[in-house]
Amino acid sequence: MEKVTRKGIAFNRKQLEEFDSFIKRKGFKNRSDAIRKLITDALVEEKKLNPESRMTATLTMVYNHHNHDVQHNLTHIQHHHHGLIRSSLHVHMDNDNCLEVLILEGTVKDIRSLSDEMAAEKGVKHAKLILTDIC
Amino acid sequence: MEKVTRKGIAFNRKQLEEFDSFIKRKGFKNRSDAIRKLITDALVEEKKLNPESRMTATLTMVYNHHNHDVQHNLTHIQHHHHGLIRSSLHVHMDNDNCLEVLILEGTVKDIRSLSDEMAAEKGVKHAKLILTDIC
Amino acid sequence: MEKVTRKGIAFNRKQLEEFDSFIKRKGFKNRSDAIRKLITDALVEEKKLNPESRMTATLTMVYNHHNHDVQHNLTHIQHHHHGLIRSSLHVHMDNDNCLEVLILEGTVKDIRSLSDEMAAEKGVKHAKLILTDIC
Amino acid sequence: MEKVTRKGIAFNRKQLEEFDSFIKRKGFKNRSDAIRKLITDALVEEKKLNPESRMTATLTMVYNHHNHDVQHNLTHIQHHHHGLIRSSLHVHMDNDNCLEVLILEGTVKDIRSLSDEMAAEKGVKHAKLILTDIC
Repeated sequence: MEKVTRKGIAFNRKQLEEFDSFIKRKGFKNRSDAIRKLITDALVEEKKLNPESRMTATLTMVYNHHNHDVQHNLTHIQHHHHGLIRSSLHVHMDNDNCLEVLILEGTVKDIRSLSDEMAAEKGVKHAKLILTDIC
Repeated sequence: MEKVTRKGIAFNRKQLEEFDSFIKRKGFKNRSDAIRKLITDALVEEKKLNPESRMTATLTMVYNHHNHDVQHNLTHIQHHHHGLIRSSLHVHMDNDNCLEVLILEGTVKDIRSLSDEMAAEKGVKHAKLILTDIC
Repeated sequence: MEKVTRKGIAFNRKQLEEFDSFIKRKGFKNRSDAIRKLITDALVEEKKLNPESRMTATLTMVYNHHNHDVQHNLTHIQHHHHGLIRSSLHVHMDNDNCLEVLILEGTVKDIRSLSDEMAAEKGVKHAKLILTDIC
Repeated sequence: MEKVTRKGIAFNRKQLEEFDSFIKRKGFKNRSDAIRKLITDALVEEKKLNPESRMTATLTMVYNHHNHDVQHNLTHIQHHHHGLIRSSLHVHMDNDNCLEVLILEGTVKDIRSLSDEMAAEKGVKHAKLILTDIC
């Protein structure tokens, strides 16, 4: 069980009203829950600026499987960095396109370097990296 | 096979040198391949500003499975929007934390709305959405 | 004077410790002040997704003033949209380059459209838009 | 005068069509100009990941001038870092709010540190940093 503590936080009235509408629109359960998520997001954004931080990431790639080398090369790169790759998910999106998601764990520097290497692979059309944290 | 056409593009010398080093650092096969990826990225960035665009997305969530309701609630939301969800991947990151990735297909509006709903769920610590395109 | 109200917010202990270090590293005066800023940022991020929101923006552009038409064309575009432009700042960065910042007020749609028009102008090397709010 | 060189770039037909519509929508003069801007943006995005890169930046801040200390404190911080600050622009947005833009030059590390310090100042409601380059 996580230990919970309660702190008094000062809000100005106008912002509190706007925040309460925001909470309703977004569907948060209450102010504490919304604030906890804003804080986590700020901590993650800060952490990812440090190349040495250990983080978790997902790399989303779209590629055309008709390009005969791409799948082979991506697999080759992944095996070469198997220590960074926790798991992967593959979806056949349509006749031509595959979407692949890799779950990565490592330093920001290593995650970015592997992400760059895969994104640069011929046949990969689009690649985007998300850094998160099992905080 | 995709049909390829060749066009003459004017570069200033200094930028071309910097671009060539960038290509080497990032590992792109050649200028054409790097430029194709920059263009795809620009098209995706533009497309996601329109709430009516149909796109593909991945939603990455970290949550604590000890929170007894979160897994049940996330499953409930996902079934309610099964038309948007193509597939999902679940990883047990450590004793406490799960990472889940959903592959979504639909309009930007619907994707953002589902993403907000799941991110707001109590117990979800961090959630990040990537929009991409099977262009 | 802004009216201030105090609310009890629940934190889990571990996150509170991490948040307190974050506050120290970033230099925030106290938790309430840091939270107010996280909330403002979240409200701005949400607001800018709606093309009809009225917001304030700054557009930062770098251009080469040796390109004979660019300054003339940028001035021409600005006069054509003078209702959107509140003010501007110009700095001669080096022998070749100028940096210009425009303060814009209007709907997100109009701000983005003017920003695109100026960024597309020949001679503008780099342009970046920030949306904010006088919340 | 900048020296210009022309290179043959391979496009696949479908992407070229989409890129040509993008160019028209965004108002770029021609393909070469659009590509030069995409390249500059990619170079800037890469450069800002290195804390030691020397870059140019604009920091946009919104604050309430009724908060009696904020203007004094911001001026104090700015004088302490005058070597980083090239120029600034101040606009009275409404009865309560000021918008201030600083033009900064220095390493990414120093720019981020000054930006954090000012953003953390009590009374600053929102602050956003743009990194660019006089490339």
